[in-house]
Formats: sequence, C-alpha cells, structure tokens
Amino acid sequence: MVRHIDADYDAIRRALLEMGGVVEEMIERAGRALSEHDAEMARDVIRTDPKVDALEKQIDESCHEMLARQQPMAADLRLLIAVLKITTDLERIGDLASNIGRSVRDIAARPDLPEAKEIHTLFDAARQMVAGALDAFMRSDAQLALEVWQRDDTVDDGYKSFFEELVSRTGKEPSAVEPYFQLLLIARSLERVADHATNIAEDVIYLVQGVDIRHTGRKDPVNA
Amino acid sequence: MVRHIDADYDAIRRALLEMGGVVEEMIERAGRALSEHDAEMARDVIRTDPKVDALEKQIDESCHEMLARQQPMAADLRLLIAVLKITTDLERIGDLASNIGRSVRDIAARPDLPEAKEIHTLFDAARQMVAGALDAFMRSDAQLALEVWQRDDTVDDGYKSFFEELVSRTGKEPSAVEPYFQLLLIARSLERVADHATNIAEDVIYLVQGVDIRHTGRKDPVNA
Repeated sequence: MVRHIDADYDAIRRALLEMGGVVEEMIERAGRALSEHDAEMARDVIRTDPKVDALEKQIDESCHEMLARQQPMAADLRLLIAVLKITTDLERIGDLASNIGRSVRDIAARPDLPEAKEIHTLFDAARQMVAGALDAFMRSDAQLALEVWQRDDTVDDGYKSFFEELVSRTGKEPSAVEPYFQLLLIARSLERVADHATNIAEDVIYLVQGVDIRHTGRKDPVNA
Repeated sequence: MVRHIDADYDAIRRALLEMGGVVEEMIERAGRALSEHDAEMARDVIRTDPKVDALEKQIDESCHEMLARQQPMAADLRLLIAVLKITTDLERIGDLASNIGRSVRDIAARPDLPEAKEIHTLFDAARQMVAGALDAFMRSDAQLALEVWQRDDTVDDGYKSFFEELVSRTGKEPSAVEPYFQLLLIARSLERVADHATNIAEDVIYLVQGVDIRHTGRKDPVNA
C-alpha cells in the first residue's frame, strides 16, 4: 500500500517535469523561429499549447484524487498544494509561449524584421529560469530556487533597457512599427515568463522550508 | 463545532470577495487615472498591490489550515481547491492592474497623450468580467460564470482591432511612440485580465457542476 502511494506521488512529479520540459522547449523554439525567420516553427509552438493544457488537467486531477483519497498531512499536503500552484504557473508560461509564437509567426517572414539580439538574451534568461525552478523542485533544493528567484531582477532590467531601445528605433523607422510592436510584446511576455518562474521558485522554497516568501520584498528569504 | 467550521468557510469566502473588490477597484481607478491624466491616482493603484498580495497569503493559509485540520471531502474539498486557484488568478490580476498603473503613470501627464477611447471599452469589459466571475462564485451560479466565460472573445476582438489602430496611428505620429507603446501594453494587460476572469469563471463552473471546462475549446460547456 505504501509503495502504491509513493508511485502516485512519483507519477505526479514525473508528469510535472514533463509539463515543464514542454514549456521550456516552446520558449526555446519560439526564439529559434525568430532568429531563423521560420514562421512554420512558430506555428509548431502555437500548436503545442493544448498539450500543456492537457497535462495541467491531468496533474490537477491526480492531485485532487490524492487529496480526496488519502487526506495527506504535513509534507505530502504541502507537496500537493505546491504542485497545484506550479501547474497553474506552467500553464500560464505555456500561454505566454504560445502568444510569443503568434507574434513571431506574424513577423518572422517580414523582410523589414529588424535585428534585435537583446531579445535573445531575454529568451535565454527566461528559459533558464523556468529550467532552474523545475530543477530546484525535482531536487527539493531551496538554495537553487533562491538563485532563480534572484535572477528575476536581471530579466526586469533587460526588459526595461530593451523597451527604451525599441522606443528610440521605432521613432526612427516608422515604417516598421508592426514588427517593433510585436518585439515589444514578445519582450513583455518573456518578462512575465520570468515572473512565473519566480513564483515556482517561491513554491519550492515553501515546499522545502515551509516558509512563504511571496511578496516579502526581500531578496534573501532563506537566510532572512 | 459545525457552526465553527461554517464560519471558517464563510470567512474564506468573505476574504476572497474583499480581494476581488480590491482588484476591481484597481482596474477602475487605473482607467480613470488615464482619462483624467492623473499620475497620482495611477501611483495609488500601484501602491495598492501589496494589499492584494497580503490577502492572497492570508486566504491561502486559511485554505491550507482547513485542508490539514479538517480533511474535507467532496464539495468542501472542491471549494478549497477552487479558492486556491482563484486567489492565484486574482493576484495576477492585481499584478496586471499594477503594471497598467505604471504605464498610466508614465504617460498620464504627457501633453502628446493621444485620445484612445477604445481603451476605455477594454477597461470596462475587463473589469466587468472580473466582477461577474466573482459574483458567480458568491452565488454559485454556473450560468452567470458561463456568460462571463463567453465574453472573453469580445475582449480578444477588441484588443486585436485596437492593435491595428495603434500600428496605423504610431506610423503617422512617430514622435509619440512611447505613449503608443504604453497604450499597447495597457491593452494587452487588459486582454490578460479578461483571461484570468475567464479562468475564475471556469473554476466556478467546476465548483458548481464538477465539470472541468478548461481548455475544451467549446463555448457552451454547461449544455454540452
């Protein structure tokens, strides 16, 4: 009986990891589609979103079933609550990646698509935060989660400076307004992907340490 | 004892309603700050966000406590799971309203701020969806939740046509790029507020009917 329960928790962890892998790949491929001007790859990203949604449903249902059937306490209860929160964040990241895919699709083939290597820095940073947060979850590593959490400021700063750059460039090339609009929306979505990765990192810290660091405004909750 | 348990569920419902009221007011005031060119009111909106965050924490903790202490079954369990999902959405709406507040603050006082009455249609529609979803929750009214859910398409369409309008206007007035960028971000945030209201509506339908309509792609799940 104990083995059966463990297998269920394991299955939930594995499904969550799978869901995380799917959204990471969506972000990575959206960035590649942009740099390679590949509208078809962008469409692939958009088409992947239902898979993320299906995984969310499946994992949530497993959690509900475990809550109802086993009435778990303490660490097990915290795990299920954390998983329910994390699937919500991953589903949003999938949505954002899908929106990014739409923006990329709409501009990828344009001959006037401006070079913007700053956006690829944002793509990498956001994707790495998602990967790091999930890694921290799998290892129950609060220190790693904290490092992910702290990286959010870097993404925010990168977004702000890219915004300024875009304003200045759009003013000089009014004929390319639409691609610049789409680049702005992509950057904003990546900034929000990073926010969701930050939420996951907070959930991991709560799970491991039982400390809720959300909205504390502090940047070193573990040693606070 | 039964009375005590009821009081706890009631307290959670009341706190959730309070949280909803705060985010609704944030959206309403952000829209007013924009139309009245009132940067100080926009700052007020931004300053309100920690209140939303604090309410989320408080409600989540109450839910965790109820789950651990009472090991609820069936309808009570579904209520707590729905509340945990809804606080996440309301917190995101608070974040989005705060981001909208930042955009409004940055452009409210600009003499070149263009008229854009379409954005106020989006403000009203998004706020009404949030209000409707919470109302549906309080009344356990799946039909009302469904109406809110269906209204999301209208907001999406409004956003798309505003996007086109902005592209065209920015091309003609390159000196006002920054306010147009901010209006675009505001519109996008409102479109996402509507998405979160849609999620809340889905949670209400799940709560009332035990049917998970997320990601079904259907537009009449109640009678499907």
